Amino acid sequence: MERFSIAIHGGAGTILKSSMTPEKETAYKNALKIALDAGYEVLKNGQSAIEAVERAVVELENCPLFNAGRGSVFTSEGKHEMDASIMDGRDLNAGAVTMVSGVQNPITLARLVMEKSEHVFLAGAGAVEFAKKMNCTFQDEKWFHDDFRYQQWLDIKDTDSIQLDHSVKKVQKFGTVGAVALDMTGNLAAATSTGGMTNKKFGRVGDSPIIGAGTYANNATCAVSCTGSGEFFIRGVIAYDVSCLMEFKGLSLKQASFETIYKRLPKINGDGGLIAVDSQGNIAMPFNTEGMYRAFRKSDGSEEISIYK
Amino acid sequence: MERFSIAIHGGAGTILKSSMTPEKETAYKNALKIALDAGYEVLKNGQSAIEAVERAVVELENCPLFNAGRGSVFTSEGKHEMDASIMDGRDLNAGAVTMVSGVQNPITLARLVMEKSEHVFLAGAGAVEFAKKMNCTFQDEKWFHDDFRYQQWLDIKDTDSIQLDHSVKKVQKFGTVGAVALDMTGNLAAATSTGGMTNKKFGRVGDSPIIGAGTYANNATCAVSCTGSGEFFIRGVIAYDVSCLMEFKGLSLKQASFETIYKRLPKINGDGGLIAVDSQGNIAMPFNTEGMYRAFRKSDGSEEISIYK
Repeated sequence: MERFSIAIHGGAGTILKSSMTPEKETAYKNALKIALDAGYEVLKNGQSAIEAVERAVVELENCPLFNAGRGSVFTSEGKHEMDASIMDGRDLNAGAVTMVSGVQNPITLARLVMEKSEHVFLAGAGAVEFAKKMNCTFQDEKWFHDDFRYQQWLDIKDTDSIQLDHSVKKVQKFGTVGAVALDMTGNLAAATSTGGMTNKKFGRVGDSPIIGAGTYANNATCAVSCTGSGEFFIRGVIAYDVSCLMEFKGLSLKQASFETIYKRLPKINGDGGLIAVDSQGNIAMPFNTEGMYRAFRKSDGSEEISIYK
Repeated sequence: MERFSIAIHGGAGTILKSSMTPEKETAYKNALKIALDAGYEVLKNGQSAIEAVERAVVELENCPLFNAGRGSVFTSEGKHEMDASIMDGRDLNAGAVTMVSGVQNPITLARLVMEKSEHVFLAGAGAVEFAKKMNCTFQDEKWFHDDFRYQQWLDIKDTDSIQLDHSVKKVQKFGTVGAVALDMTGNLAAATSTGGMTNKKFGRVGDSPIIGAGTYANNATCAVSCTGSGEFFIRGVIAYDVSCLMEFKGLSLKQASFETIYKRLPKINGDGGLIAVDSQGNIAMPFNTEGMYRAFRKSDGSEEISIYK
């Protein structure tokens, strides 16, 4: 049997063991396991990497613990604005959406943009109109409402502060989810989804919907999904950076992703992490923050579900 | 005196000599010269590359001949939606806007996002709100109205066709403008601006506002501004591709940009071109279409203003 593997993340940032309860930790790990299982099952059944990353991200989007889909944070107007992108390493096809409201699973919408539209990137009302045409599932504000997220927003809504997600320092956790996978036939895929930053203004777009920055996949190199201070991931073109270090400099997946996260990203003061898989099924999950919700499973039986360094 | 240089483009596509009148050709060349002069003057006065590319693109945006700023094409709703991005090779700082209406010079707004906001990328109403705060110059629809563009839109508004800009085949010209520059102190910068596609729908975002795809600048390698079928430039992460081929594979500016435009972009069926400058002031302007409105001038006195292959 050909090998296959999947990795997922639920965001990186200042996640300190001291500020976490055992119950909360278990809840996060269980949620990661559900998403991991869902994606892994797809691969085990011989289905495609693109199907696996979508399925895993849908689970993460449907879980209120993570800042994506249902768990999305509130913008400065008390609304939810979500972004997502997906890329197929087989043909470098890609789909992305930004500033989307009401759609239950932005990652599914991103895949529909990739497969059913002539475009790669749709934004705002136009993206929502396309979602309606495609019969995407919509949810009302109540479905997205989460008391914890709402309190986060109330805390800072009349200030100029933004926060990337809940944390001790309140600006040090990056709420994004993502998945990367290698399927049995050797195809790679990557997917990323986010609910943005609490109290964000001005229609800010981060790296999650940007192909090359937050998401990238190429069968010749690797599949990458990022989480971190989005502005720096855009300026560093971080996801594609890993791929280029492999393709043009001959680095391994581990060498390339470590070079990007531990050397090149800090050089421009960026922090965060990424998950990546190569065509051999190797996994790398580097991050330069206190923690990153992450998990992987390979067809050889190896597995990990972790939060801290 | 240290060398400096600047290159500009006004879009690539099917620009056939047979369908061009001598008057039109002169008008385009004059418009390119005005923008080239404006940017070159900035560099000659010892000012920065970022100032030079902004100044050159402002001239191109203010000229109704090019699909950017004043000359922007009509969307399917008969409106104008503009995108722009700018990047400073000195510190990899960047600014970008998408789906902006009413702002006279989107490139100036992109620079303000880079310099005066904590974000890199702002979209839609939020970007316009920021423009108002920054006291950007606004213009009413009449200012943007152009009979030729309007007729283009009337021709296809009740169809599902989109067109990238006017041309023989009507879908083969890519209306984008851009500039790249090296200043006396060795700093590189790139800027790109577009008015989108005639009759575009669904809030489609192309490569022009995407750092890494349409625009990239890094003092260590090069500054790049792209024009072409945006979806393919996003999927190929074309602007950063040129930089990576130089940084990781040791290619020259000419080798890297030719590799990207003549080999890697066609592999995914993309067409278009780019302008690029490196830290030695070398210029490359490859394109795989019939023509590209382009021009460059170097401090050594060399200069070119051309349209066809």
